[in-house]
Amino acid sequence: MSDYKYSMPIYFEDTDHTGVVYHPNYLKFFERARLEILGVEHISKIWQEQGVTPAIYKIEVTYKNPVFFGDRIDIYSSYKLDGKFKVIWYQLAWARGVIAAEAQTHIIAVDSNKKLVPIPDNLSSL
Amino acid sequence: MSDYKYSMPIYFEDTDHTGVVYHPNYLKFFERARLEILGVEHISKIWQEQGVTPAIYKIEVTYKNPVFFGDRIDIYSSYKLDGKFKVIWYQLAWARGVIAAEAQTHIIAVDSNKKLVPIPDNLSSL
Amino acid sequence: MSDYKYSMPIYFEDTDHTGVVYHPNYLKFFERARLEILGVEHISKIWQEQGVTPAIYKIEVTYKNPVFFGDRIDIYSSYKLDGKFKVIWYQLAWARGVIAAEAQTHIIAVDSNKKLVPIPDNLSSL
Amino acid sequence: MSDYKYSMPIYFEDTDHTGVVYHPNYLKFFERARLEILGVEHISKIWQEQGVTPAIYKIEVTYKNPVFFGDRIDIYSSYKLDGKFKVIWYQLAWARGVIAAEAQTHIIAVDSNKKLVPIPDNLSSL
Repeated sequence: MSDYKYSMPIYFEDTDHTGVVYHPNYLKFFERARLEILGVEHISKIWQEQGVTPAIYKIEVTYKNPVFFGDRIDIYSSYKLDGKFKVIWYQLAWARGVIAAEAQTHIIAVDSNKKLVPIPDNLSSL
Repeated sequence: MSDYKYSMPIYFEDTDHTGVVYHPNYLKFFERARLEILGVEHISKIWQEQGVTPAIYKIEVTYKNPVFFGDRIDIYSSYKLDGKFKVIWYQLAWARGVIAAEAQTHIIAVDSNKKLVPIPDNLSSL
Repeated sequence: MSDYKYSMPIYFEDTDHTGVVYHPNYLKFFERARLEILGVEHISKIWQEQGVTPAIYKIEVTYKNPVFFGDRIDIYSSYKLDGKFKVIWYQLAWARGVIAAEAQTHIIAVDSNKKLVPIPDNLSSL
Repeated sequence: MSDYKYSMPIYFEDTDHTGVVYHPNYLKFFERARLEILGVEHISKIWQEQGVTPAIYKIEVTYKNPVFFGDRIDIYSSYKLDGKFKVIWYQLAWARGVIAAEAQTHIIAVDSNKKLVPIPDNLSSL
């Protein structure tokens, strides 16, 4: 279990016409945080060499407070390996001094035929 | 409780480099199905006249099978009002003869200040 | 040269916080129209069997009038083959009784190594 | 006329099933570069205080070379005010030692009724 912080601004692309961040975009934000923690080059290398890639098995997101254009979101992340086939991430998006959203994400690894494979040893934080 | 079907094709915009539908996009698909069921013009009118809009409180998605460019997804939806402030939707995305993903979504209504308001009488399927 | 019409609604996902359709999304809309005209299954089959896919070489879009959540856009499309390697599409997005945007798009075909190949005979409207 | 550099990684969200960056996403990348150059907080403040926001009038993008998951794109930007109502940006996306894409974007300013207004004095790089 480790703790990491990832910080990002909110642009036009992130919002919808009601004035706040569009809800599916948080899944992108949480993924960006995970990729920066592990290293996108590392994930890319495993894909190119082994054809193995992370895949989302389950995600649960609770939306607590709205976030607006021009705000900055800080994402706090931790994870643990759950058996040989799954990594569980706990992530918190923080903005305007309150929790914006929180998520629990179950991630597996699949090969190029989309078949389940064990989480690579060097990728326990996939 | 009602049952509805919404059908849609998978385009380039829906996929990622691993060859399958990118996971946050299912949240868009489930929302498209909800909007078509209720009528996007109806949701738009409530927004323009009352400043009230649906907001996602919680979403849980389980991803079961991959979907590819050129596939067609059928989304089956049902919902129920849960108290005065919440609508719960159950949705199933079906493709290639199997379940692609399923979701449970808790939806609330907020005013133009992003404050919680009761689900509008004429919008119990918000 | 042919003329086609494709019609679509505007959802939350299409807008940004200024209240109108977010400008890059028109490129998705124009592509949806092209794919429906030719058949997404057809494009998918050429990809699976030959590894050949359309790629955008150049696009020019002029934005004329704003489009809002709940509006409906009609896209009018025509195209012509320009030599053996390029198809040029002319597309017009129409909403609220006026032109919303118009685009000219130059499309080529590439193989699985991203090398230029001639437009497939059966895909002159790629 | 000024020159600026903005650098960003390519994630899953940026790609499509053909393995490369999906073409409309470059419009997001070019906008991110513009917003970071001027300051997204500054653009946000003008929106909140005056209801004025940048709007795209015309964009022309040429796609030169493919970019892949895990790559890094550097965006070089320069701009000039063209009269009182328009700013023209020239932007180059650079990856893998070659030009990935280049764009010329004509940007105007609109008020909360989507009517054209002069580029704000303090926003000549809108």
